[in-house]
Parts: sequence; C-alpha cells; structure tokens
Amino acid sequence: MSIKNESNKMVNGFPCKANVSADDFSFAGLANPGATNNTFKSKVTGANVQNIPGLNTLGVSMARIDYAPGGINPPHTHPRATEIVFVLEGELDVGFITTANVLISKTIKKGDVFAFPRGLVHFQKNNGKNPAAVIAGFNSQLPGTQSIATTLFGATPPVPDNVLTMAFQIGTKEVQKIKSRFAPKM
Amino acid sequence: MSIKNESNKMVNGFPCKANVSADDFSFAGLANPGATNNTFKSKVTGANVQNIPGLNTLGVSMARIDYAPGGINPPHTHPRATEIVFVLEGELDVGFITTANVLISKTIKKGDVFAFPRGLVHFQKNNGKNPAAVIAGFNSQLPGTQSIATTLFGATPPVPDNVLTMAFQIGTKEVQKIKSRFAPKM
Amino acid sequence: MSIKNESNKMVNGFPCKANVSADDFSFAGLANPGATNNTFKSKVTGANVQNIPGLNTLGVSMARIDYAPGGINPPHTHPRATEIVFVLEGELDVGFITTANVLISKTIKKGDVFAFPRGLVHFQKNNGKNPAAVIAGFNSQLPGTQSIATTLFGATPPVPDNVLTMAFQIGTKEVQKIKSRFAPKM
Amino acid sequence: MSIKNESNKMVNGFPCKANVSADDFSFAGLANPGATNNTFKSKVTGANVQNIPGLNTLGVSMARIDYAPGGINPPHTHPRATEIVFVLEGELDVGFITTANVLISKTIKKGDVFAFPRGLVHFQKNNGKNPAAVIAGFNSQLPGTQSIATTLFGATPPVPDNVLTMAFQIGTKEVQKIKSRFAPKM
Amino acid sequence: MSIKNESNKMVNGFPCKANVSADDFSFAGLANPGATNNTFKSKVTGANVQNIPGLNTLGVSMARIDYAPGGINPPHTHPRATEIVFVLEGELDVGFITTANVLISKTIKKGDVFAFPRGLVHFQKNNGKNPAAVIAGFNSQLPGTQSIATTLFGATPPVPDNVLTMAFQIGTKEVQKIKSRFAPKM
Amino acid sequence: MSIKNESNKMVNGFPCKANVSADDFSFAGLANPGATNNTFKSKVTGANVQNIPGLNTLGVSMARIDYAPGGINPPHTHPRATEIVFVLEGELDVGFITTANVLISKTIKKGDVFAFPRGLVHFQKNNGKNPAAVIAGFNSQLPGTQSIATTLFGATPPVPDNVLTMAFQIGTKEVQKIKSRFAPKM
Repeated sequence: MSIKNESNKMVNGFPCKANVSADDFSFAGLANPGATNNTFKSKVTGANVQNIPGLNTLGVSMARIDYAPGGINPPHTHPRATEIVFVLEGELDVGFITTANVLISKTIKKGDVFAFPRGLVHFQKNNGKNPAAVIAGFNSQLPGTQSIATTLFGATPPVPDNVLTMAFQIGTKEVQKIKSRFAPKM
Repeated sequence: MSIKNESNKMVNGFPCKANVSADDFSFAGLANPGATNNTFKSKVTGANVQNIPGLNTLGVSMARIDYAPGGINPPHTHPRATEIVFVLEGELDVGFITTANVLISKTIKKGDVFAFPRGLVHFQKNNGKNPAAVIAGFNSQLPGTQSIATTLFGATPPVPDNVLTMAFQIGTKEVQKIKSRFAPKM
Repeated sequence: MSIKNESNKMVNGFPCKANVSADDFSFAGLANPGATNNTFKSKVTGANVQNIPGLNTLGVSMARIDYAPGGINPPHTHPRATEIVFVLEGELDVGFITTANVLISKTIKKGDVFAFPRGLVHFQKNNGKNPAAVIAGFNSQLPGTQSIATTLFGATPPVPDNVLTMAFQIGTKEVQKIKSRFAPKM
Repeated sequence: MSIKNESNKMVNGFPCKANVSADDFSFAGLANPGATNNTFKSKVTGANVQNIPGLNTLGVSMARIDYAPGGINPPHTHPRATEIVFVLEGELDVGFITTANVLISKTIKKGDVFAFPRGLVHFQKNNGKNPAAVIAGFNSQLPGTQSIATTLFGATPPVPDNVLTMAFQIGTKEVQKIKSRFAPKM
Repeated sequence: MSIKNESNKMVNGFPCKANVSADDFSFAGLANPGATNNTFKSKVTGANVQNIPGLNTLGVSMARIDYAPGGINPPHTHPRATEIVFVLEGELDVGFITTANVLISKTIKKGDVFAFPRGLVHFQKNNGKNPAAVIAGFNSQLPGTQSIATTLFGATPPVPDNVLTMAFQIGTKEVQKIKSRFAPKM
Repeated sequence: MSIKNESNKMVNGFPCKANVSADDFSFAGLANPGATNNTFKSKVTGANVQNIPGLNTLGVSMARIDYAPGGINPPHTHPRATEIVFVLEGELDVGFITTANVLISKTIKKGDVFAFPRGLVHFQKNNGKNPAAVIAGFNSQLPGTQSIATTLFGATPPVPDNVLTMAFQIGTKEVQKIKSRFAPKM
C-alpha cells in the first residue's frame, strides 16, 4: 500500500512515495553500538518508519539496545507492540510483569531470544562486567515507548506531587527529589 | 460468533455458549459504589467478559470507578484498550502522559467525558471534598490493567532492587521502604 | 498516532493535530439530558471523533441517550460497533435480535449494564413513568447508526414502494402512510 | 492456521482439521438456482465456513441469490461483512441506504458488479420479467444476515407491539397484521 | 468511512469523496470475457478500488478470469487476500500448495466454488476443449498479484541469474532462455 | 490472553497455559549457526510460537538465517507477515519484487537492516567469501513460508507438468529435470 504512482500522497500519517528504491527499505544506523555514557548507561536506537519510510503500513520495526556494564533499559512499556529480543552480546537480566502482578524474569545471554508481551511493563539490566546488546523486533511500524520513571517524574508539565506521593506511598520531599533527577533537558 | 449450537465449545479462551439468554449480556454489579476504604481510597469494578459472558469476541467492556475524597486511581496502563470515561458525580483531576512525555491533564466534573489513549499511563485523582465516580468504556472485552507502583514495587517475585534504584534514581533503602508498602496481600 | 509534529496532516479522514491539548480529549456535551420533545421522545447525543478530535484512530466513543416516559430509541443498528450501556436513571426495556431471529430482551434499571452485539438490530424503550437515561460505550471512534424505520421509510430518495410492500407484506397505501410520517425534514 | 497436525482441535469455534483435502475447500451447492417458490420469490444459498470447512480463519465467503420475476431479497444487513455482487443473469434494482439516510440505488444487469458497504441496510429486487441471479462475495467466513422485517416482526419471542407501533408510527392492529405474516415456521 | 462531507480528502491512499452516487459502487467491466489471445491464453479483469471508488476501506473486491481452451492462470499469490472463485462456465483444474508443501487440487466445473487461502501459491488451468471463466471474490479492496514466473524471470531490473540458477537448480543458459520469454513489454 | 487460570485451554490453535514461566517466553535455539551443508547452503531456524509457547496471540516471532559462502535463501514468500532483517555478520545481496514487477535490491552488510513487505517474493544471497547470518523479525507468531521452486517443483502430489511448462514457458523435459532436483525427501 505504500507504493503508489501519485506524488504527495500521505497514508497513515506518513508519505506514500511515488518512486521507491531500496534505500526506502533499509537503514544502516544499527550497525554500531549507541553511546551509553548517560544516566541509565544504555541506549535505544530505533529502526522504524521514521527512518525506514517503506515500513509505512507494514506493521514491523526493529531497534538496537546497548548496555554498558551496570546499564539498564529501565521499566517501560510499548503501547502499540509486542517486543522480542535477540542477544547480540553479553548477558542481561530481563523481566516483565503480568497483569496478575507476577514477575516473569530470566538471565539471558548471547544468542538467546526473549519475548515481552504487548503493553506490559518490562526491563533489561546488564549485571555483567561486559557490554551487552540486543536486537529487538516489534509488530508495529512505530511501537512508541513510555519509560515509567521518566514518564511519571519527568513529564512536562509535571505530574502533580499529590498524585505521586499517593501512588508510590512516599512523601512530597521524596517525590521532589526524584523529580529533580528527571528534570527535562537534563 | 459467541452464539453457537454446539456445547462445550470455547472461542478466544472463553465459553461459546449453546443457549444464551439476556443474563449473558447484562450485569448489575456497577449499580452501587465500590468500597473505597483502602490505600488508594478508590475502587475499580469491572463489567467485562469475566462477568458478562456474551461479550466474548465483541471487543467492548465497561468499569465503574469510585473515589472517596482524596482518593486516587493511581498511574496505570491498559495494555489492550483505549479508555473513555463519563463522570457520574464529583470532580476529578485526570491526566495521561504522551510518548513525547507531555502531560495532558484537566479537571473534569459531573457529566464530562475524557479519553485516555491506548496503552498510555494515566490517572484520576479526586481532589474535591465529595465522593466522585466515573463509568469507563473500553474497546476490549478484557482490557487488563497494570498499576505502575504496584507492578514495580509489589510484584511476586519482587522486581530486583537494583532495577528500581537505577530506574527511579533512588537508594536501596528508599526502594525497600516503598516495597514494604506494596507487599502482596497487604 | 494522532499526535504528530507536522501540521495539516490527515489520518483516517480526520485531522492529525500538531499540538494537542486536554480539550482535544474531552467533551462536556453529555452533561445534561438531551431534548426529548420529538416523535420518539428520546435523544441520542454522541461523544465521538466528531466532537473529540483526539479519539482519531483510538477505536472508542460514547453517547448519552435520554428517554422521556414512553420514549423509545427505535430499532437500529451500528454498522461499525458493539454497544454497551450503563443506566444512569430510570428503567428501560431493551433487546436485540440474533441472526437466528431470537429476541434477547430484559428490563434494566439504574446501575445495570447491557451489551448489544456488533451490527445487530436493537432497541431501548422507557415503559416507566419517569425519565430514563443511559451512557453508551462503543468500540469505534464513529460507530454510525441506521434507525431502521427512518432508513426504510424516510430515505432520500425514497426506497421504492414495491420494495417495502413486499418486504413488510403490506399494501402500497400502508407504505405511503408510514412514509408520510418519516418524510425528511419533518 | 486451519491446517494442523493435531486432531480434535478447534480454532475460532470451528474444527481445525488434521488432514485436509480439496473437498474442504470446495462446494458444489451454488451450481443450480435455489427454489424461489416462497413469500419473497427469492433464495439465498450460502457457501461459507458452514459448508466449506477450509474457510475457517480465512475471512471470505460467497453466496448465490436467485430471484423469480417480481422476487426480492428484502432489506437486510450483514453484521460482519461488506458484500459485492456479480449479476449472473437477469436485471435487478438494487440499493443501500447510507448512515446519512441517502438511498444509493441503480438498475444492474447481467455482468454488472455492485458493492454494499459493511453493515448498511440493502436490498435487491427483480422488477424484470425473467429470473435473475447473482454471485455475492463477502469479507467474512460467515457474514450473518438480519432480514429487517423478519427480524422485527417475526422474532421469537416477539418484539413487543409498543416498540413497533412507535418505531413505525402505526397502530397495534397494523403491527399485529404484519406480525401474522412473519409468524415463525410459516 | 468513504462518504464524507469535505472535499479533496484522502483516506487509505484513495479519495474519500464528498458526494457519492451509485456509480461509485458499481462496475460494468466484468460483463464480457477478457481477451485471451496472449501467452497464457487467459485474462484477469479486476473490479477493485481502482475502478470502484466506493470500495475504499470496505475490504472486498472481485475479478473475472477468462481462460481459452488450454489457457492457464499461472501459479501466483495475492499478498493481501484470500480468494474464492465461482465457475461461470467450463471446467478448470485448480490447486494451491500449503506451507507443508502439499498440493491441494481438484477439477471444478460450472457452478463449483473453490477457495485459495491467503498468500498461498495457486493456479487454474483449463484442460478442457471449451472456454472457461470464473468470478473471484477477495477480502481486500486491492489484493495485489505476484505471478511467480513473471516475477522471477521478468522483473525490472532482472533478478540476478545466480539467484535463479541456484533457486531452480538449473544452468545459466536455461535461466536466460526462460528470461527471454518473460522480457518486459513482450 | 495467553495466561489463564484454567488448564487444558486452547486459544488460537495453541495451548493457553495455566502456569507460565520465563521458559515459555524464551528460546536458546538461535545462538549457534544452523547447518548449511545442503542444496541451498543456507539454513533458517525459527523462533516462533512452535518453540516459544508464550508468543501465542502476541503477533511476533524471529528467525536466524545462516548462509555459507555462495549460499542462498531462495525466492520465497511469508503468507502472513512482513519481515525485517538485521545482518549479524557477512554481506548479502537481498531483494524483493513489487506487485508492479519491480526488483528492489541492495547489498547489505553487517549491521544493516532491510525490510521485505508482507507477502512479496524475496530472497537473500551470500555472494561473499565468508559466512553470513541475519536475525529476522516477523509480525506474526507463525509467519509460514513458501519457497517458490520447492513449492512448484517439489510439492506432494506434484504440480502437473503442463501447469509448469506453460507457466515457465519451458518444455516437459526441462520441467521433469527441475522436478527431479526437488523430489521430496531428497
């Protein structure tokens, strides 16, 4: 559906190109590890409809995630996709929590595959001494991500303190301390 | 698809009943306010395929949510549905956070309608002096819920401390204090 | 999918707004009873993508239906949605007919929930002495409605008499009498 | 998905056969005209998952409709499918009504194709002097049908008289007269 | 969804017309046999969203296929649809191959129906002495077709010889001979 | 939907397990290169619902494909999925053919991503001197595969010679020669 003869056509909110080439279906940006010198010592690099125009309407995308030793892809959800990962290198402690509040977790290592069901909170943590990396597949051209702590403590405008104190059963001071660490543009 | 002549048939993981009656399509359990004498001073009562068998395969359900003064339906997601609420009584501060980390929030009062997009973290808080209640509609026969704090700090087995310290940028002691408040079977 | 950075973008036949606010996700128009001083003594007020732009692509909507004593929401279908109702006040005799031509009906009262499966003919009638009202949830951003008698006897241009005489097994005079009561712009 | 190795398996409410043959994908029952010596002088013969087991999960089916001179396929809906017809022989006056209550109609003849959108009320009438027939395609393995007059005036148990008098703006006597013509098992 | 009040609107890559008429839902182009004086002695004529604008978003289409004696609709796939055919005249040897590499085949004659599951390679061959024709129904507004031999041996630019020699286990000379018969614009 | 309390339940043709563990969501079988000492000098190893039970209903799967130097994953289709690949090592010439019969091809190397749209014929060939490997993601729990030459020349029972001679414009002797190379159980 994404290959049409007319120009300037939009389908699904993205261009429906008149003349496609192989470049519309490929991406080189996952070849190298992402920079992990940040708070979470990890980096997610997407390969989705935003950098592969030909994926429009095709319902699939990928991402590469790199983790320095000690790094984490903190608890998050993808509102529009199930995720499945293949470990490129290293070792990761991964898990997701079911709607019955059961943690399903496992240590996975190079070559292992693990699936995180659609919409459920999940995480990966590199508790090893070496860098780790995975390739993730999604059943959405743009899965979207909500990183839980950043969403709750770093949104703009901020989520009200009294929502967070009650939700997490902590004091206002503690909420503000956490918020200070997720201040936008940090 | 949920009305068949054969007995003992399952469709979609739920019974496909041979003889249906109006009772398979109705539910009286939302008539009265749910009990709000709990931690969050709120109560969600579902009207989905678990108590309305005829909803199987039909893609819709409802819930009633009651909030005592000061009560909260803490930040949570529905992995399988968009939610739309109608305020039965009272006033609520509601909000959801987009994947661009923008808080979309509003004070809604009796008679107002508000929509929470599929999979996004959202909450409702009763900052008024009177009880509040909403009727929620979902585009799933069983939307599922992940209450964020309970999911992260109250799962069984527990999410590892070092995942939570790094995710929320807090100390182990603080994580354990929060966990103590979400201990299962509290 | 309905929140994009580019302007003037359309998705799904509706605007995909560049900057959204809480107003794009809320609607106050269901707060008060609709006017029921009409032929059917009832009024349907929609809360869908036409007045809540943020619902675009999200697959859900609501409506409020008011019924004066004796009022009816006459037999109709929604081509694109299952409906589930919650009774706000009063008492209603409701029903739908299955594809096996079985009437599934029940008297529902304040607080009851009842589901009408996708695409099936259904109705609600207030046989009580007091006004009644429901909040309806749909699994479509714009469910559409075909009110059967109005569709068949009030369409423009009119459905041919000989279709209706044969369909309803009545005479031309009777068809024309019914048509006169459903004349457009009445 | 409908071809599996295990026996006794059900998918989607229908058997998922262990060993399939060409007979599971074919049907000879549309070869001859259906008997039209009935009230509507027409006959619908389905070719769907009920007589072509291999169609299970495949989302498509067919039907043959025969019309004696003067015959009608009276106004009806398919809750789960769009319909497209090809005229095998004869000439038909066909139409559907939109949700804006506009009749879209046309006389179609041998070789013509016409589409009836999902869920909308539609009809075909043979106003010619010769028999007519169509082959219909549906995007559902079992589209389901609600023939409007039979649904409203011939359901079991019956739709209450006061629903029909008000809906059609006619008297109880007229309702009962119509009902007598749609009595079940006629 | 394809009937809107605004003009110049596109939905799904096709126009969403402001004012529709019956002509937007009909097509006369399947009335006569297509010309079969070609390599395959067969002709496929589509009745889809490209010539029936009203089909946009409705998920269904048709085609007529004519076969001279000895003609073939060579092995092909429809990437987006299941196909079901009704034999208008003549006799055909039809078949599809499952993902377990089993050929499901049958001789079908006038009036027979046969289904070809979504995405699987299938063919029809007229081994009789008379012309044959079918009407096909699809669960897509534009099913798309890949005729296998033409796809592999007639693409522009050409599929590399060494892909085809290895795939078919034949020599380069044989590949080039086949390619010469599928040269574009033949 | 795949985590239920009842035992012996089937959903979607696969078990819906009562008690799940991390093993239901993981698979170690992609860790090592598959054996490529075969006709095509390549090996596809799936990681789908057949070896990861927890994927049931989740719409995603993976595969690892290994290619010896000179190896090919010959032209094939996945009837139920789009595919996206990430090159683990080596270099591959890949391509797919559109429904307009245009070859979209490219040489991709370690770290590159390439997408093959749903249902279209595609291939990968290792024209380099070193082994190559990719990880593929699919938007189906079981995408299915039809390898074109094997499907047409190696099916059981065999596709009739006269279908293949006409389809490929070659002689019976040539067809039989190709068939001999795709004899089942070779």
